[in-house]
Amino acid sequence: MSAKIANILFIGDVVGNSGLQMVSRMLKGFISKYEVDFVICNGENAHNGKGMSLEALNLMLEAGVDVVTGGNHTWNNFNFFETLKTHDRVLRPQNYPKGTYGKGHGVYKLPRGLGNITVLNLQGRTFMYPIDCPFRTADWVIKQTKEQSSLVVVDFHAEATAEKLALAWYLDGRVSAVIGTHTHVQTADERIFPKGTAYLSDVGMTGPYQSVIGMQVKSAVDRMLYQTPHKYECATDDVHFAAVLLKLDVETSKSVGIERIFYPEFETTVPQG
Amino acid sequence: MSAKIANILFIGDVVGNSGLQMVSRMLKGFISKYEVDFVICNGENAHNGKGMSLEALNLMLEAGVDVVTGGNHTWNNFNFFETLKTHDRVLRPQNYPKGTYGKGHGVYKLPRGLGNITVLNLQGRTFMYPIDCPFRTADWVIKQTKEQSSLVVVDFHAEATAEKLALAWYLDGRVSAVIGTHTHVQTADERIFPKGTAYLSDVGMTGPYQSVIGMQVKSAVDRMLYQTPHKYECATDDVHFAAVLLKLDVETSKSVGIERIFYPEFETTVPQG
Amino acid sequence: MSAKIANILFIGDVVGNSGLQMVSRMLKGFISKYEVDFVICNGENAHNGKGMSLEALNLMLEAGVDVVTGGNHTWNNFNFFETLKTHDRVLRPQNYPKGTYGKGHGVYKLPRGLGNITVLNLQGRTFMYPIDCPFRTADWVIKQTKEQSSLVVVDFHAEATAEKLALAWYLDGRVSAVIGTHTHVQTADERIFPKGTAYLSDVGMTGPYQSVIGMQVKSAVDRMLYQTPHKYECATDDVHFAAVLLKLDVETSKSVGIERIFYPEFETTVPQG
Amino acid sequence: MSAKIANILFIGDVVGNSGLQMVSRMLKGFISKYEVDFVICNGENAHNGKGMSLEALNLMLEAGVDVVTGGNHTWNNFNFFETLKTHDRVLRPQNYPKGTYGKGHGVYKLPRGLGNITVLNLQGRTFMYPIDCPFRTADWVIKQTKEQSSLVVVDFHAEATAEKLALAWYLDGRVSAVIGTHTHVQTADERIFPKGTAYLSDVGMTGPYQSVIGMQVKSAVDRMLYQTPHKYECATDDVHFAAVLLKLDVETSKSVGIERIFYPEFETTVPQG
Ligand SMILES: [Fe+2]
Ligand SMILES: [Fe+2]
Ligand SMILES: [Fe+2]
Ligand SMILES: [Fe+2]
Ligand SMILES: [Fe+2]
Ligand SMILES: [Fe+2]
Ligand SMILES: [Fe+2]
Ligand SMILES: [Fe+2]
Repeated sequence: MSAKIANILFIGDVVGNSGLQMVSRMLKGFISKYEVDFVICNGENAHNGKGMSLEALNLMLEAGVDVVTGGNHTWNNFNFFETLKTHDRVLRPQNYPKGTYGKGHGVYKLPRGLGNITVLNLQGRTFMYPIDCPFRTADWVIKQTKEQSSLVVVDFHAEATAEKLALAWYLDGRVSAVIGTHTHVQTADERIFPKGTAYLSDVGMTGPYQSVIGMQVKSAVDRMLYQTPHKYECATDDVHFAAVLLKLDVETSKSVGIERIFYPEFETTVPQG
Repeated sequence: MSAKIANILFIGDVVGNSGLQMVSRMLKGFISKYEVDFVICNGENAHNGKGMSLEALNLMLEAGVDVVTGGNHTWNNFNFFETLKTHDRVLRPQNYPKGTYGKGHGVYKLPRGLGNITVLNLQGRTFMYPIDCPFRTADWVIKQTKEQSSLVVVDFHAEATAEKLALAWYLDGRVSAVIGTHTHVQTADERIFPKGTAYLSDVGMTGPYQSVIGMQVKSAVDRMLYQTPHKYECATDDVHFAAVLLKLDVETSKSVGIERIFYPEFETTVPQG
Repeated sequence: MSAKIANILFIGDVVGNSGLQMVSRMLKGFISKYEVDFVICNGENAHNGKGMSLEALNLMLEAGVDVVTGGNHTWNNFNFFETLKTHDRVLRPQNYPKGTYGKGHGVYKLPRGLGNITVLNLQGRTFMYPIDCPFRTADWVIKQTKEQSSLVVVDFHAEATAEKLALAWYLDGRVSAVIGTHTHVQTADERIFPKGTAYLSDVGMTGPYQSVIGMQVKSAVDRMLYQTPHKYECATDDVHFAAVLLKLDVETSKSVGIERIFYPEFETTVPQG
Repeated sequence: MSAKIANILFIGDVVGNSGLQMVSRMLKGFISKYEVDFVICNGENAHNGKGMSLEALNLMLEAGVDVVTGGNHTWNNFNFFETLKTHDRVLRPQNYPKGTYGKGHGVYKLPRGLGNITVLNLQGRTFMYPIDCPFRTADWVIKQTKEQSSLVVVDFHAEATAEKLALAWYLDGRVSAVIGTHTHVQTADERIFPKGTAYLSDVGMTGPYQSVIGMQVKSAVDRMLYQTPHKYECATDDVHFAAVLLKLDVETSKSVGIERIFYPEFETTVPQG
């Protein structure tokens, strides 16, 4: 591998203990296999499916994660706010309004003399909360961090495909990658935009797939059928690891490769007797 | 290929003239390559990106499509309502309320003595319109059509991954496939559920990818930046074909294979000089 | 007062203990002052601002209420579901889907030989949950109950003024009154529609007005400022009683009078020194 | 009337030609009757129910209006944007993002040596578009305009009662009045907050009441029944004038009186034969 290429592994929303265990068990192997230099991991659902905890954060860091990003569920566990305020390896979306706990981007050192990388966590607004504009927030962070690092990877935690694609076009050539999270379903649209920004609409969930995006099937179906509250219960079975590997050219700050990872693969054929 | 396996090709949201041309140019080749028995195609964006027209319908049928399904945009072109009422090869979501034009499912004859197939078009409600319950509507249609055909393919036109997965679990073993449309982004989660229902969260768009889900980039970005109306203009460049191939066992009515198609593939690596 | 006129008092969303106390203290006086024959009271927020309880229900019934209606918050307190299933004096919106606990309408006996009255609880869908159609549900209940009673009072628990007015026009002449709840703000648009249906967009809240619709000001403002969760705390101060008095002509089933009640009145002038 | 009290008339959303005619016919009389010093009028629906036009603006100004405010519909008529950019008597919500046409507040001269008044137009975000924060935008404008005028009247164009009340508590004592628009239904909760800010959740519509918030009844009901597009048609019959009169103490910048106006009043009793 070229000395000028940074290999970044980006892991999608880790859900609950089964997701955390999957990360603990598998990550070192992936790091070794893909010669990974830096690991970003969305952890907004690590604490029993809803929010974050110091314990979950430590588990991920020990497993080999370098920085944990967040999303709308970051705020579910009030006990995590102290950590969120002070820990430099955990982010929440930058475009939450001023006065919110925590920080939304960080500049981190890469190994092998590859320089620094900026990780920027943003959140969408379509079908979500009316927080600050993610487009303008990105402009501001790019300007702020430019001198420390021109490699920028964005975790865009958003629901609507239109908003994700609009941000990717808006940032094409100005950040190294725009990677979507939040829907818990991996998309198949990985590509490199014309000016060098790698893009994937959603990395998907690292967690239990005998579920509705991580939630026990019965409660999730009942919520739809009756439109009344049904207790959230985190699912546990059929755990998969969802991630994307980015290859960033440190000289140009552009992406030169993007590859989806989903392990183990789903069954797509049924053996016939 | 076994005489007992029906090969169904399901094409995702065709957007505008460039999408229609792609279907006209490519479909015959895919039919031949995959020995396709029946073609379902979501056409809600065929008429300039918004709605349907008789002309677009005829183009798709001539290209080899057997039945055209719809979605929320079906209602954008008032001129299409007459056709929607009477034509037996075009559907709109079944769970629009009583009194709405058109029909939401049809039973069609397969070639090669494979019997009949029911195509059922449903629409989600999360982040969309409060129409009738798609879960209960599916129950009703399955019961209605059971004697004519036990093969059922569902086009579930929906936004939220949770709603799509909940419906798949709800219908697992009772329909042959639940295939999502509407987000215009192909997902990578094709699988066969435990009781034999094939599933894909979204087939993705057949249309111009130098766009925000089919719309010109500038207007789409401006809508996000300013939150004011900006004229919808259909994009035209970088057209791709998005579909999924289903293999249905005619004896058991279950799926035995599911394979995504996206043509041409996106660039995921950049050659380095 | 004519023997043919039924005086119905309809009390708006009772919030928490302070709201319950207001009902206990004031209702008997209002019943006597206005010669009230029947009292309907929306109780979806009676249990600490969120949901219902058997205790709250009993307090309202003892205070003189005849039937307690509900809304989206009815489902917040799981402990109430047993009562909801069996008690004949408590309703939840009728248009929740089949399989939901409780019932959405009841036919009750009026005093003074005035016959029966149907109370129908419905919920809107604009900006709310996608439950069954309130318009068609109203049609069905009117038909069902016609022989037992032609007096029908609707509690339409809804957010959007457009949906409330649309239902009123749709039901004009077929029910005696359409009375809105849910926004916790009394509207000033009481009127009798051309065919005899009395209408008020919202009765308003019976509860603490030093609040944001019943919630402590600080948490409510913080939710808006930061778009993160802030614990719901029920307010307690500046309690007012919000209701509307309906005069129904028992022979024609139409309304002949509608009068808002808000006690004590707000200060609208400031004395100048 | 005291020389120190400024009488401000605030007219609610004027809908279409029938609303404009009502303003033309009635406003001079109200100005004279209430000794009005300054007239604010929400005009977002003046142009056939959707948006604004130069013609509508001129009609309102000629009728006696001093400044026309806007809302979400301001952007419906593309032809108005030139006027919006340059005319100093028309506003659109201040908290639309940077780069949007027009301005969101103005400082205007009052007659009788009463000094200046700041009119600030804001828009809510709950159930509306994710524009900038109205709370923080208000802070900024208050600071900006403080030296020119300490009288501030806010037109808060918003859907949710919670958001309206939260802003009123947030601004209590810092602006003279927070007056809601947008729902087209006048509320009955006019009051003066503890620190002197006058408040009304909504002024209501100046326009045709044989309608669903200004729209022809049939199309509006059909939209709800079928959840498909039905052409917007502006209603024309049963026109009422909705406004609120504010009495501002020029020395303290606080409100000393608030009075609703609705003309002609609705029928609330039916004569019995
Ligand atoms: Fe997540
Ligand atoms: Fe999320
Ligand atoms: Fe589509
Ligand atoms: Fe769609
Ligand atoms: Fe309520
Ligand atoms: Fe409610
Ligand atoms: Fe309006
Ligand atoms: Fe509006």
